[in-house]
Amino acid sequence: MTVLVAVKGWDPGHWVDALRARAPGRDVVVAPDVPDPAAVRYALVWKPEPGRLAGYPNLEVIFSLGAGVDHLTSDPALPALPIVRIVDPDLTMRMTEWVVLQVLLHHRKQRLYDRLQAERRWAPQDQVSARGLRVGIMGLGVLGLDAARALAGLGFPVAGWSRTPRTVPGLETFHGRDGLPAFLARTDLLVVLLPLTADTRGLIDAALIDGLAKDGPLGGPVLVNAGRGGLQDEAAIDAALRDGRLAAASLDVFAVEPLPEASPLWGAPNLTITPHVAAESDPVALSAYVMGQIEAYERGEGLANLVDPGLGY
Amino acid sequence: MTVLVAVKGWDPGHWVDALRARAPGRDVVVAPDVPDPAAVRYALVWKPEPGRLAGYPNLEVIFSLGAGVDHLTSDPALPALPIVRIVDPDLTMRMTEWVVLQVLLHHRKQRLYDRLQAERRWAPQDQVSARGLRVGIMGLGVLGLDAARALAGLGFPVAGWSRTPRTVPGLETFHGRDGLPAFLARTDLLVVLLPLTADTRGLIDAALIDGLAKDGPLGGPVLVNAGRGGLQDEAAIDAALRDGRLAAASLDVFAVEPLPEASPLWGAPNLTITPHVAAESDPVALSAYVMGQIEAYERGEGLANLVDPGLGY
Ligand SMILES: NC(=O)c1ccc[n+]([C@@H]2O[C@H](COP(=O)([O-])OP(=O)(O)OC[C@H]3O[C@@H](n4cnc5c(N)ncnc54)[C@H](OP(=O)(O)O)[C@@H]3O)[C@@H](O)[C@H]2O)c1
Ligand SMILES: NC(=O)c1ccc[n+]([C@@H]2O[C@H](COP(=O)([O-])OP(=O)(O)OC[C@H]3O[C@@H](n4cnc5c(N)ncnc54)[C@H](OP(=O)(O)O)[C@@H]3O)[C@@H](O)[C@H]2O)c1
Repeated sequence: MTVLVAVKGWDPGHWVDALRARAPGRDVVVAPDVPDPAAVRYALVWKPEPGRLAGYPNLEVIFSLGAGVDHLTSDPALPALPIVRIVDPDLTMRMTEWVVLQVLLHHRKQRLYDRLQAERRWAPQDQVSARGLRVGIMGLGVLGLDAARALAGLGFPVAGWSRTPRTVPGLETFHGRDGLPAFLARTDLLVVLLPLTADTRGLIDAALIDGLAKDGPLGGPVLVNAGRGGLQDEAAIDAALRDGRLAAASLDVFAVEPLPEASPLWGAPNLTITPHVAAESDPVALSAYVMGQIEAYERGEGLANLVDPGLGY
Repeated sequence: MTVLVAVKGWDPGHWVDALRARAPGRDVVVAPDVPDPAAVRYALVWKPEPGRLAGYPNLEVIFSLGAGVDHLTSDPALPALPIVRIVDPDLTMRMTEWVVLQVLLHHRKQRLYDRLQAERRWAPQDQVSARGLRVGIMGLGVLGLDAARALAGLGFPVAGWSRTPRTVPGLETFHGRDGLPAFLARTDLLVVLLPLTADTRGLIDAALIDGLAKDGPLGGPVLVNAGRGGLQDEAAIDAALRDGRLAAASLDVFAVEPLPEASPLWGAPNLTITPHVAAESDPVALSAYVMGQIEAYERGEGLANLVDPGLGY
């Protein structure tokens, strides 16, 4: 019942420590140093190198150590096994913090006040209340719905867009490609919390930006993306910020991460960049989540939060 | 039944327009151009010059066009009349937006990410979730309670401090000078939403700062004040920011407003300054509130949200 940890870009030691603290009886090994591959039943993975999960004949379940699974589904050598993704209140709460911060930063003109402060200028600006800024959320999954709840609680008129029809009290909803133009046309500030799939790749492009409402209170539409970098056409976003078709943006995710030093985005006007930290994975909370699922699975209770391989999320 | 508008630092025209739109039948006059002072029954005021409200023999009610009334109670020539203050969902919502923004800005290390972005550096930082940052709110009135609700909803452990004992579900409460040390000692980030009174003037001083928790997740205590500038010792705050006893602060209010260009606060490290805009007064919403109160008063229903002259709030 050995548990394999295969993470790229993170210190696997944190995960091993957290797993051992939560499940002292288990063997925990770190790829690629696996003395007995046949003993591995479960794999906890984040951005594994392609092919990394091949060669474990008794592997039964793959746990993605994040809410997204595009880092796995892109591996052509991925074994055809159940993939469980993270759905954890700690991760959801962190994402909502980040989204609420970025929405308020734009809504309350904080970047303008920052510039005025640097010039020692006291210059109160006109300000609408939250009721005057229409927020649209792409993706009404675990994260999108929680962000919608928090933003509606602050008074923003919130609408959401999903693949299939969804009915959510207090939320105006749209779905599918057919529903997209009307959703964009009523949106002053767009929050993207979509998974990266074959269907969503490159969706945030010049045409989508041009479909957003232009008469909002911030001098133009605003984009906030914490989904995945692959969703966005970065050259189009950069150009739209520079020519004013976008008034501002906040991006936590990028096509290439770390964002290369040479990327023009670093210097794009009115853009806030954070380094893929919107909803950090907490090894202690997430090891407890994974071990809880493994224990339930071994009692024959089945797995929760399984990914649909056909849909890719 | 003439209504007098006496506002300093604001365009009275917005208020006259909003009042006339809401109550077309009323006479509305703007101080000091008042042809018939004896006709004035109601005064809508914001920071009137001292003595400005004397000389209206039939004045019955004074409406403060903000939540605070320190701009009135400081006038020795103020007639001894009922003072009504603003309690309005629009104003409350705006204040909560500002408070949530400033708390998240510090909690999520946005200022550090801003500096890293300027250097084109991708450097994810350790981040606790909201559960790991203890917020303390001074003032559990209309504004303090709404900010507490919103911050607790994001996951922050919130406590509050008031003059009299208060029991609020989900909130740890403290009160009075005796309760202050324990309240400060459990507070990593302090939000001040107190009125300025004889009792609260200068309360935010070096001793209070030194009483805050030092072992929080932000490298030191953080101060957020949207109450009144007179609550704070600005030299003490400036010094504490410069020597690290305060890790960061956000101030919307100042002892002298506009904050003079020569104030050292403009350049204090890790300080965010906004120009008294946390909860702007919206003439349309607030004229409706005042006229609604006047109409109820004339029907003999009495006045709501009266200030206690002895307490000064
Ligand atoms: N930046 C970070 O730190 C960070 C952290 C965690 C997660 N994330 C990203 O956030 C994403 C969302 O997470 P989640 O837990 O909320 O996912 P989820 O529960 O699986 O929800 C996904 C949502 O996206 C919608 N969707 C998927 N494909 C679509 C399409 N082609 N057209 C329209 N809508 C589509 C789904 O529609 P239906 O409701 O119709 O199925 C669903 O509402 C993750 O996949 C990950 O990429 C980022
Ligand atoms: N920056 C801005 O744009 C802006 C806008 C609006 C308002 N404000 C400021 O916000 C203040 C609060 O507004 P509000 O509507 O929440 O006022 P409120 O409803 O009157 O509440 C005042 C709170 O402060 C507490 N308090 C008063 N004196 C105290 C003392 N000596 N010790 C401890 N606690 C004390 C009161 O305690 P009890 O509960 O025991 O009575 C009450 O909880 C206003 O007075 C104004 O100065 C600023």
